[in-house]
Amino acid sequence: MRRRATLFLALVAGAATVSTAEDVRAAIEAGNKAFCAAVDRRDAAAVAALYTSTAQVLPPGGEIARGREAIQKAFQGAIDAGVKGLTLTALEVEPHGDTATEVGTWAMKGPDGATVDHGSYIVIWKNEGGQWRLHRDIWNSSTPPPAR
Amino acid sequence: MRRRATLFLALVAGAATVSTAEDVRAAIEAGNKAFCAAVDRRDAAAVAALYTSTAQVLPPGGEIARGREAIQKAFQGAIDAGVKGLTLTALEVEPHGDTATEVGTWAMKGPDGATVDHGSYIVIWKNEGGQWRLHRDIWNSSTPPPAR
Repeated sequence: MRRRATLFLALVAGAATVSTAEDVRAAIEAGNKAFCAAVDRRDAAAVAALYTSTAQVLPPGGEIARGREAIQKAFQGAIDAGVKGLTLTALEVEPHGDTATEVGTWAMKGPDGATVDHGSYIVIWKNEGGQWRLHRDIWNSSTPPPAR
Repeated sequence: MRRRATLFLALVAGAATVSTAEDVRAAIEAGNKAFCAAVDRRDAAAVAALYTSTAQVLPPGGEIARGREAIQKAFQGAIDAGVKGLTLTALEVEPHGDTATEVGTWAMKGPDGATVDHGSYIVIWKNEGGQWRLHRDIWNSSTPPPAR
């Protein structure tokens, strides 16, 4: 009887793990969708609100932005510089308890729908009080720099 | 007696956890040192050997390099383009079982010791058969692009 109970608990735990990994990916993909929507409506405060309170953004061409205020400022700058039409594609999501790593690619499309730039990113997500939020975020462009 | 044994085991487990986090950081810092040494002696094969067999490098200015052969080629290109005098500084290392995330900064120094470029990176490390290896690796430069 004890063996059966142990087997049952192991199966339940196994099922819960599988479900959680799918849940985490779904939550992260929903977060990415909210991120792109906020960029498209030029709402840097809404972008920053998707990050943890102690988040860090490591942008190309600038120093590390620490905390939501600095992150909002960084994205305001990007939006003012013309960033829009952003899509994020999660290639891999790996949950580890309250942390999850995401490897993905991004693309930026112009008004005519053509891709004007694309690149890669890694985000370390944290579950804060039941909500998955971006905690560490780095990206770059795959476009080769202009020849000098 | 059972309670004492449980307490003892909890203390041992706690001590083991602390020791492991320090061990992981030490292993990753040793990996970074080996990485910079291999770049300095222009040994792209030795750089690639520090990665897992299924690693991915997400470089700025290029597409994702998958697997050691592609990674070696990418670093050969970087070394041929003049990358040397590299230092890596781990700002944060967070182990999660066989995975660890690292957030850090890099700097490249010229022959006169002056920093010629610097930036940030995130590496997802995996412990493969007792050896910590780079598994996912992305970086960018903090230097603003030249005005157009």
